[in-house]
Amino acid sequence: MTEKILITGANGFTGKHACHYFSKKGMKVIAAVRRDNNICNHSVKQAVCDLTKKNEIELLLRKEKPYYILHLAGQNDVSKSWNHPHLTMETNAFATLHLLDAVRQENFPCKIIVVTSALQYDMKIDKYPPHPYSLSKSVQSIISESWSEFFNLEIIIAKPNNLIGPGDSNGVCSLIAKKIVDYENNKSKDPIVINDSSIHRDFLDVRDAVKAYDYLFQRGKRNEIYNVASGKSQSLGDLIYIYRELSNTNFPVSIKKSSKEISPVQVDISKLKALGWSPRIPFRTSLQDILDYYRKKAVKK
Amino acid sequence: MTEKILITGANGFTGKHACHYFSKKGMKVIAAVRRDNNICNHSVKQAVCDLTKKNEIELLLRKEKPYYILHLAGQNDVSKSWNHPHLTMETNAFATLHLLDAVRQENFPCKIIVVTSALQYDMKIDKYPPHPYSLSKSVQSIISESWSEFFNLEIIIAKPNNLIGPGDSNGVCSLIAKKIVDYENNKSKDPIVINDSSIHRDFLDVRDAVKAYDYLFQRGKRNEIYNVASGKSQSLGDLIYIYRELSNTNFPVSIKKSSKEISPVQVDISKLKALGWSPRIPFRTSLQDILDYYRKKAVKK
Repeated sequence: MTEKILITGANGFTGKHACHYFSKKGMKVIAAVRRDNNICNHSVKQAVCDLTKKNEIELLLRKEKPYYILHLAGQNDVSKSWNHPHLTMETNAFATLHLLDAVRQENFPCKIIVVTSALQYDMKIDKYPPHPYSLSKSVQSIISESWSEFFNLEIIIAKPNNLIGPGDSNGVCSLIAKKIVDYENNKSKDPIVINDSSIHRDFLDVRDAVKAYDYLFQRGKRNEIYNVASGKSQSLGDLIYIYRELSNTNFPVSIKKSSKEISPVQVDISKLKALGWSPRIPFRTSLQDILDYYRKKAVKK
Repeated sequence: MTEKILITGANGFTGKHACHYFSKKGMKVIAAVRRDNNICNHSVKQAVCDLTKKNEIELLLRKEKPYYILHLAGQNDVSKSWNHPHLTMETNAFATLHLLDAVRQENFPCKIIVVTSALQYDMKIDKYPPHPYSLSKSVQSIISESWSEFFNLEIIIAKPNNLIGPGDSNGVCSLIAKKIVDYENNKSKDPIVINDSSIHRDFLDVRDAVKAYDYLFQRGKRNEIYNVASGKSQSLGDLIYIYRELSNTNFPVSIKKSSKEISPVQVDISKLKALGWSPRIPFRTSLQDILDYYRKKAVKK
């Protein structure tokens, strides 16, 4: 019997990679999307479902009863969360509750990964979250932890950092690559503006992240929170340096500031590593693949 | 110009007292209720509004633009929260967000008291909330604090303990009074069962609580959290003792256990007292009024 996985946010950056990965693994993928995206193929079945409507997710679960659920759907844009705070809460926090409560009600065996965010705030330390996006992901997390605890649901929480790789993304690596490709194609001569080249981030290839979600399904512990990251700190300066090596052009960069104090990020990924997972794709390869993605896209236009 | 106050949950235990208090004070009261309860009079105007529907609360606010909002509406039954956890979250947490976000969008001058609960869990200490009700009130609180902080809204958080007094309530003082009145009227001979007479609670008369809300509207600080309580600890044994004195009958009581270790509750009400408020109604008077309320109700039947 083929194992069935429901992937929400299947048309998003991570969602597309996840559909590809799990279908290639031989699983039956139900790709939940808000609008018809025509993403069916022999092993991926599209399911149009507005997760902010509880009855829609109930109907879908009753029909499909997937053994795995990878809940990726969400509004992931921090600046959009300022203009659309209610929508952000609804999409990230309430929709997650609708999903988890539908699982509780339908009462079928099921393992769920709820993908939250490294941008959550620490309620033990910070009085307020820095933005509505952070609040929405924190509320998503405490609802998920509570529903797992109250109703004995198999919920695992994955907390990814900056996921990068080929595909449409609003992350900094993609935004810069797009500009480089525009420059390579003589479409723009504007410099790439970096506010502070000493800012550090933990970047992880999205394909490594998807593999981490697979490890969590197989070996993760119920109601544990797992950081999904590379464990390595890269500065925006490093990023530009590598892109320079990978591009054929000498694209202009305007660095507004480069602080002397370097504050690397240190994300603890020991819990995930203890399950046997480790990141495989080097940072340079991710950047190469991102550039190639946008180069191909530019040719298609 | 008469000041206008919107009271949500106007038909609830505290809501009825609040409508009475603020209308008596000469304010124009808009009593928001989920279903038509026919509670209009010369100074109270009923507004039927399902707060779980954002568009309904938006329409109401656009029309009324109240200067004060006392947000009491909610699902306040802990045991019901186990059977209806989603409804509890929706009614307590999501509806509050709908209300606060409607205030943000409509953008009129407005002071809001969000009434949360002493049964919230302390996210700094406890890993999980004890029940869905606790989660719902904690999420209500962090949403309220965040919306106040993000959008500079005049939100004050009131955290009441056990409110008691005349009126229909599921609190322990009311439940016992109902049974005493049944006994007085020869309707029941069953003993009143007390699981542990040494359990302590902080009881505050609901009329003192409503007065506290008025103090908070006038003098409370934006985005502060105020405990609303008597500051006194009473055991369930004390409660039975006083009820025995107030009743004409020798109603039977079955006390299952009386722990030797007494653990009084100590609620810090100094922040509210610093505004000039203090509880006025003695515990005994509250209990007398509760008994009288149920006695009158029994006569009417």
